[in-house]
Order: sequence, then structure tokens, then C-alpha cells
Amino acid sequence: MKLLIPGPVTTRPEVRAAMAQDLAPWDNDFRPVYASVRHDLCEIAGGRPETHATLPMQGCGHFTNEAAIRTFMPVGGRILIPMVGAYADRLARLAREAGRVPVPLEVNQQEPVRAEAVAAALAADPGISHVGHVYSETGTGVIHDPAAVGTVVRAAGRRMLLDAVSAFGALPLDVSAHPELDCVVFTSNKGLEGMPGLGFAVARIDRLEACRGQAGSWSFDLADIYGQAVRSGWGSFRFTPPAQVLFALRAALDIYKAEGGRPARLARYQANAATLYEGVQRLGLQPYLARALQGPVVMNVHAPDDPAWSLQGFVDALKSHGFLISNFYNTDLPSFRVGCIGAVTPDDMQDFVAAVDASLVQLGVRNRAPQRLAA
Amino acid sequence: MKLLIPGPVTTRPEVRAAMAQDLAPWDNDFRPVYASVRHDLCEIAGGRPETHATLPMQGCGHFTNEAAIRTFMPVGGRILIPMVGAYADRLARLAREAGRVPVPLEVNQQEPVRAEAVAAALAADPGISHVGHVYSETGTGVIHDPAAVGTVVRAAGRRMLLDAVSAFGALPLDVSAHPELDCVVFTSNKGLEGMPGLGFAVARIDRLEACRGQAGSWSFDLADIYGQAVRSGWGSFRFTPPAQVLFALRAALDIYKAEGGRPARLARYQANAATLYEGVQRLGLQPYLARALQGPVVMNVHAPDDPAWSLQGFVDALKSHGFLISNFYNTDLPSFRVGCIGAVTPDDMQDFVAAVDASLVQLGVRNRAPQRLAA
Repeated sequence: MKLLIPGPVTTRPEVRAAMAQDLAPWDNDFRPVYASVRHDLCEIAGGRPETHATLPMQGCGHFTNEAAIRTFMPVGGRILIPMVGAYADRLARLAREAGRVPVPLEVNQQEPVRAEAVAAALAADPGISHVGHVYSETGTGVIHDPAAVGTVVRAAGRRMLLDAVSAFGALPLDVSAHPELDCVVFTSNKGLEGMPGLGFAVARIDRLEACRGQAGSWSFDLADIYGQAVRSGWGSFRFTPPAQVLFALRAALDIYKAEGGRPARLARYQANAATLYEGVQRLGLQPYLARALQGPVVMNVHAPDDPAWSLQGFVDALKSHGFLISNFYNTDLPSFRVGCIGAVTPDDMQDFVAAVDASLVQLGVRNRAPQRLAA
Repeated sequence: MKLLIPGPVTTRPEVRAAMAQDLAPWDNDFRPVYASVRHDLCEIAGGRPETHATLPMQGCGHFTNEAAIRTFMPVGGRILIPMVGAYADRLARLAREAGRVPVPLEVNQQEPVRAEAVAAALAADPGISHVGHVYSETGTGVIHDPAAVGTVVRAAGRRMLLDAVSAFGALPLDVSAHPELDCVVFTSNKGLEGMPGLGFAVARIDRLEACRGQAGSWSFDLADIYGQAVRSGWGSFRFTPPAQVLFALRAALDIYKAEGGRPARLARYQANAATLYEGVQRLGLQPYLARALQGPVVMNVHAPDDPAWSLQGFVDALKSHGFLISNFYNTDLPSFRVGCIGAVTPDDMQDFVAAVDASLVQLGVRNRAPQRLAA
């Protein structure tokens, strides 16, 4: 079964196989594996060990996003969040419930955030300390431009937190060139094609040291995670981690390097997305976004306007062809969404397009033009 | 390699093998697996689906403990914590950093907490709403008596949170008979012999409903996790879980049932501990606790008083014999600690005792009497 969802993604057999062992995360034999994972992640982020720490956190990406907000912002601090879709909504909720104040910046969700809009919002509200930005919004499929946004954030003397969960490993990132970034958040799954179960922050060491003691949560204090890692001399975890996920990530990073690193991974995802975009168009279906705005991570496709259409029925039919897609959607109008990331190739996408065609026929869908009314 | 640590524990090959697959946690085929795991865990806790919800949380046991404190106690609330060892210290720190007020109850750490002491502390401080108790303290190896403590908590009209991380699945528990328990916390690893990566709370539904909105953290709000599970109709996660860990836990629970459930698991762990206790005594080593106080989860053994002794050297030597133990200790005097839980048997413990003997000889340790000075 190929998972064509924006996460958990399809992984390679070598990566999955690495999960099937008992491991002690503090064992001397495990430490170099763990150290090499941190080293590689820091490098992919564009960080250097002198300036940036790579901090793992048990659980999901949301947990690490909450930890980033708590660690780098005081209670009552104000964070500007361009409201680019479902994951920006979540960032705002994480901030609000943690006692920080999200300041929403309403934007056109169907295009990348314009840096001028961020600059204007920061100029209008000097009390805003941070901008929280989602790099790849899996709700819409739009890829944003954190380098451009970061430049205006820096010019305004503010700081930035970047949710790169579905972008990391494929889309460009250079934390060293963007000192306004307190940290970037991502996970072991998604574009790294590891297994789910760990989040990561690549964070500025000077900021971790300056922000000690304000998280209001021991679990979610990145400064304390950093402190323990340094005190231990080898990056020790504070609490039991899923060591299997780290071991699988080592296998995934070996594959990543062998493939050619970030440029090769992005090229494959772009080829996946192009094959899918042209393929569904050929079938008479309509992607949600214009071609120029469609990112390489996730694609929403309008649901066909036919009484025989049912999303769950379509998902079940696709499964019988060996493909699993999400059985929910995040768009205003009915759609189905397809992930273009993970250990899949343009050939897989070609097979998927054929499976879409066959599944629509199975369901008895005749009219493939888009539904124009919200469900 | 057998892991003889109080977690991560040794697992069975069928359990590890269940990790090696790609899974979508909202997939219709996965839902019954997930539902059956929740059902079984609730039953092991002594809960009923009408009164108790089984809530999974990504990450480690500490995260779920923090979530329990945040969910059921308001900011500024006071929680009495019998200071039974390292894990009680951690509970206190989790509470303090979350803005709740831990009230430490100093106790003799080498014996179970006396219920009268808890009753007296509650009588002396009417502002205490909760007691936070560690069932099995892996720092000392002492098993406490939450049923006895719970009875005085209930009599005093207070509530209780139980950290059962290293006890659950082996030691007796009946949440239905203890309505003072807001929730019990445990993980997928330890006595259930699943893989690490998920925590769980079995919590009272009436209390979850009464405590909405006070967690001060979206991630760590058990009431919100419960709300989403109900709204979805099938127990949906809010954020991506490590579905592999749930699948492996299903395999582990099948083995648990086949073994004879909780009584059989406890009996095996007790037999493991007895074999180990008598075995190390026969070698001239001295367990830290008197036999009557030694629990079946983890055993500390005094480090031998010989200049040739080194804990890391001993750990390395044991590893060459196929056993992995912790390379740190939590006791006042130098010791080594050995886990008696996980997919290991008295025969394994017998082999381990022989490996201890051989390792001491390899190191050149002649005097096996206990070190009497703190390192």
C-alpha cells in the first residue's frame, strides 16, 4: 500500500525495518548514531554546531511548535501569524492556550504571503515580538516564502518561529542566513521520509540561553532540553525517547544523502506533483490551485460534481488499487487531497492517476467537473 | 541483546515486527485495531467505557503526567506529593513549572508510603486538592500502595493522580473501585511490553467534562483530547500519532492475554525478581532493599567495594554477554540497577546472574561487599 497523504508518508523498507529492534537510548553504542542524526539535521537546516542546537522532542510536530512558542516568547507576548490555512490556525491556538497572544494577519490563502503585508503589520504594532509562519501549508498546498518574510522581520527588529513540518528536507532553508529565526520546527516523518514519533527544533544557541525559564512547562522547555543535552556531554534526552524512530531516521538520512540531498528530493517531489497535476487534468478533474501556485507537497483536487461521488467510497476504491489518500479535506469546496511527498516516484503517481480513473468509473461518477457548492 | 532496564524493556519479536509498516492512523481499517487497544487498556485499568475514557498521547510518560496535572488542576492548585524518589521529584517539577503548587510530603523512601501520613498532611492543609502518587518508583524499586493511599484521599474529600508508568499491566489496579482517581497514567512500553512512543491516561469522564478549559496548553489538554475523540465518533487523534506503536501494542496485548493477563504477568516479574535477588546474593553481592520490600519491577544492587569496579566497565562486560543494563544509578550509595520487567523469564535472569559473575571476574573485582561511601 502506498500512502499518498501529506503524512504519515510512504517510507522505504530499509527505514521501516530499522524500527523492529529493542534499543536503549543512552547506550554507548547508540550515542554516535544519535549524534550523527543531529549533525545531519543541523546541516540540512543550514545551521552550524557553534550557533545552532538540534533538539529532539518526543511526540508530534504540534508539540514542538508549542515548545517553540513557550520557550522563545514570554507569557503575554504577541505573535503575528499570517493566517494561511489550517496549520496557521493551529499555531494560533497553540499560542493562545499557552497564554501568548496570537495576532492574526488575514491573507489570501491561495497565494504565498506577501512580505510587505507582514512589514506593514509589524510597523503598525510595535508590541509584536515574533512572527509565526507556516512554510508549507498542507491545508491548501501553497508553499510560502519564509526567506522573504524573514527579511522584513529582521528589518523590523523582530524574531521569527518557522513551522517547516511538511517542508523540511525538500524546500530550501538556511537558518544561518536568517538570524531572525529563533528556531525551525519539523518532524522525523514527512520530507525526511523517516517514521513518525519525534519532532525536532533547530534553534539558535544564543536565544536558547537568553530564554531560559519562561516556558511555563518543563516538558515543553527547549532551553531545558538544550541544558540537559550540554550537561550530559552527549546530548542526553531528559525522558525516554522512541529510540527506534531515531534509528529509522538514520536509515532515512542515509537514503537522503544517496539520493543527492535536498535538491534531488525537491526535484522528485516536483516531478511527482507535475505528473499528478497533468494526470488529473487529463482525466477531466480540476486541481484546486493554478499550476503556478501549486506546491510539490500536497495537492487538493476538486471533488467531481456527480451524485455518485462520495469521498469515503473513492478512498475505499483507491485502496483496492493499492493507494491510500486522506478521507477528509481542508478546503472550502469539496475536494480530495493527495500527498506528493514520501518514498514515491513519478511512476507511482502515473499508476495513481490510472487508479483514480478506474475508481471514478467503479463509483459510477460520470461528470468530473468540480462541485461548486460547499458541502 | 536482552534489555534489563526498567524501560525501554525487551519486547517479543512479534511486537517489534509490527513496527515495520506504513500506517495511516485515521484509516478505516486501522480504527478497529485502535478501538480494541483502548478497550483492552481500559479493562486492564479496571475501568468501564461508561465511566472512563482511555486517552492516548504522543510522546513519553512525563508528557501524559504533565497533561494530567494541567487538565485536572487549576493554575495555583495545590498537589500533595509523597517524595518517594526520582519520579516523585519529576512529578513535583512538572507541577511547579506548570504553575501548580507541589506540596512535598517527606517520607522514608525505602518503604511504601504510609496512608496515615497522607491523611495527616491532607488534614493539615485544606487547600490541597490533589495527591500525586507514584505507584512503582523505579529509582528505589519500592512498590507503593495507591489503593490504601487512595482510600484516605477519598475520605478527606480530595482527588488523586496516579503515575503508574512502570506498574501498569502487572500490579493490581481498579479505577472503578477508586472514584477519587481522576486518572491513571502509563505508557505503551514497560509492563505492557509494547514499544515506546505513546503515553495513555485512563480518566474519569465526569472529571474530564468538569475540567474543560483549564489546562493552559492545547497539546496537554486531556479534556480536549477526549472532546475530539467523542466528536469524531471513533476516538480520533488530534495530531499525527505514531500509529506503528499502537499496532505493536495490539500485538503486545494479544501476547498479554495469551499469557494469562495481569496475574500471570505479575507472577513472571516476581519470579524474575526472586531469581535475581537470590542469584546476586549467592554471588556475594547485596541488593539495596530488604527482600520483603523489594518490588518486582527494578532492583538496585550495591556496587562492590573494589578498586577494579567501574559501572561503565561492568555495563560493557555484561553487554558482551548479551545483557544491557543502565549505565547510571538513582540511589544515594553507588549501585547498579536491573530491570525485572519486559519479555524476559526466570531462565534469562539465571543467565544474567551468571553473566554478572563472569563480568566481575573479567573486571578483576575481588571484594563484592557493598561500597559504603557515596561516590
